[in-house]
Amino acid sequence: MKTRLTEAFGLEHPIISAPMAMAAGGRLAAAVSHAGGLGLIGGGYGDPGWIEEAFAEAGNARVGCGFITWKMAENPGVLEQVLARDPAALCLSFGDPAPFAPRVAAAGVPLIAQVQTLRDAQRAAECGARVIVAQGSEAGGHGERRGTITLVPEVADWLAGHSPGTLLVAAGGIADGRGLAAALMLGADGVLVGSRLWSSEEAQVSVAMTDAAIAATGDQTIRSTVMDAARGLRWPGRYTARVLRNKVTERWHDDPEGLRADAVARADWAAGWAGGDPERANTFVGEATGLIHDRPPVADLLARISGEATALLAGGPRGFGN
Amino acid sequence: MKTRLTEAFGLEHPIISAPMAMAAGGRLAAAVSHAGGLGLIGGGYGDPGWIEEAFAEAGNARVGCGFITWKMAENPGVLEQVLARDPAALCLSFGDPAPFAPRVAAAGVPLIAQVQTLRDAQRAAECGARVIVAQGSEAGGHGERRGTITLVPEVADWLAGHSPGTLLVAAGGIADGRGLAAALMLGADGVLVGSRLWSSEEAQVSVAMTDAAIAATGDQTIRSTVMDAARGLRWPGRYTARVLRNKVTERWHDDPEGLRADAVARADWAAGWAGGDPERANTFVGEATGLIHDRPPVADLLARISGEATALLAGGPRGFGN
Repeated sequence: MKTRLTEAFGLEHPIISAPMAMAAGGRLAAAVSHAGGLGLIGGGYGDPGWIEEAFAEAGNARVGCGFITWKMAENPGVLEQVLARDPAALCLSFGDPAPFAPRVAAAGVPLIAQVQTLRDAQRAAECGARVIVAQGSEAGGHGERRGTITLVPEVADWLAGHSPGTLLVAAGGIADGRGLAAALMLGADGVLVGSRLWSSEEAQVSVAMTDAAIAATGDQTIRSTVMDAARGLRWPGRYTARVLRNKVTERWHDDPEGLRADAVARADWAAGWAGGDPERANTFVGEATGLIHDRPPVADLLARISGEATALLAGGPRGFGN
Repeated sequence: MKTRLTEAFGLEHPIISAPMAMAAGGRLAAAVSHAGGLGLIGGGYGDPGWIEEAFAEAGNARVGCGFITWKMAENPGVLEQVLARDPAALCLSFGDPAPFAPRVAAAGVPLIAQVQTLRDAQRAAECGARVIVAQGSEAGGHGERRGTITLVPEVADWLAGHSPGTLLVAAGGIADGRGLAAALMLGADGVLVGSRLWSSEEAQVSVAMTDAAIAATGDQTIRSTVMDAARGLRWPGRYTARVLRNKVTERWHDDPEGLRADAVARADWAAGWAGGDPERANTFVGEATGLIHDRPPVADLLARISGEATALLAGGPRGFGN
């Protein structure tokens, strides 16, 4: 499958792996790149040691790295640390990319800017992003409110008129070939896949949490701030994180400040998180969890997604009367 | 374009118009059916006089009618009124269809059940719905939280395994050929279109509200209960309505009970609504408002959506390497 994204980055499949904090270590990112996609390490909150280890794990695979922009801004040294690795791309999400875009450009590294609104897409394009990832609310983990199916074509229209060379990637709710084919129809050049790759052999996720995600339907997720309250993180108010509902979200969803003030409950969450327990901590997965039924190797997943999309685009099982 | 939906209902385009309360009168529904889609009158809250007038306006056009289920349940006489018209279909949304499905079946009228979760889709299929409309949160007016891009394929998978003869239609955020093509890729047999047809010559909508929608981006909508508070409507808690943000949502979004108790503010809203004023009342439109730039006749819209989708499905402007 050839798109502007595969051409620009020399990929076999128009698929980027989401830089999921903690879950997307070097093993996952390397597996994605070796399988013909673009793998991104989840630089997340910017722990230098973790990032160093992830790049070491990735070995000679050509991978990129993603950061949570507002958090990385508190310690921009990690940006230099990653740029020194000559990554395949640098992905910024959840904050203004403007302060960092010139440095990334000067390093000759393609900037991928993930956005959640049309307005932020315009800002990212003006910052010179090579790729804009339009992330819908369906996504697991942090995000905002707009849906993928409207955000992607609206950003596509704006880019066509103002910045036609900027590539567009769809994220949020895409877990199979149907989602990839739909994203291309909506005007994207490719997709960024999170939850589906989170449930793979190479992801750094507990088996118990993966099993919980496999058992859940898409009805069972919720956007909440409970997990940030538990961790003492002060995310900007516009962002919430999608996770599986459980006893923790039931108890604290309407009272996150109560959780912040409850040291015992927070310690219990931290212990649950350390142990990968989907009941005591939260499983970061999107609505696509209802489309996920296994935990295969990444290479199988990429071949499956790409193959299914190719078949659909070539005429599809139902024909559509063409 | 041929799909299972066009075959089952004898349509030229796999497009159903949303039964938008107030906006979808007989003129809109008839225009959709005359143009080769399936037009639905917005029976909404079940005003017998309004419905009678809408069917009269529709003349000899073959149209259906939709109801807000929980509200219609308070006055099931309007169901009999509509079934006596031998409608092309009867659409139920926002409530359990089980109490009414046998009556609709006995009348020989196809039941269209609009749902917002997988669980409700399962319930609708068990009730014998001929068509399930999977409505994502992007939609204008009332709805729930799940996104179109995950709800459609998840319902498609469940139907394939449990009720393969039930047709599936995607709703929420679909306003052009890209959305229709994407919906078919996701496993739908067609689409239900609201906002895009709301902004047409034949819709019963004020020019001022239409102009506000045309000017807005998709970032400018919000899901809220303000409009129901203003109207004294007690919707079940799981549903909210998407509208354009304005001074009313700014003031009352976090305090709907305050609005319920404020007779002056409610009267102002009602006057604004009667006058079609997008500042004093609210414009019921979905995230697809950012894809809407005109107010053409319905026939032009259906030809445009269907034509664009056909071109995309036949290989598309970007080719996708097929």
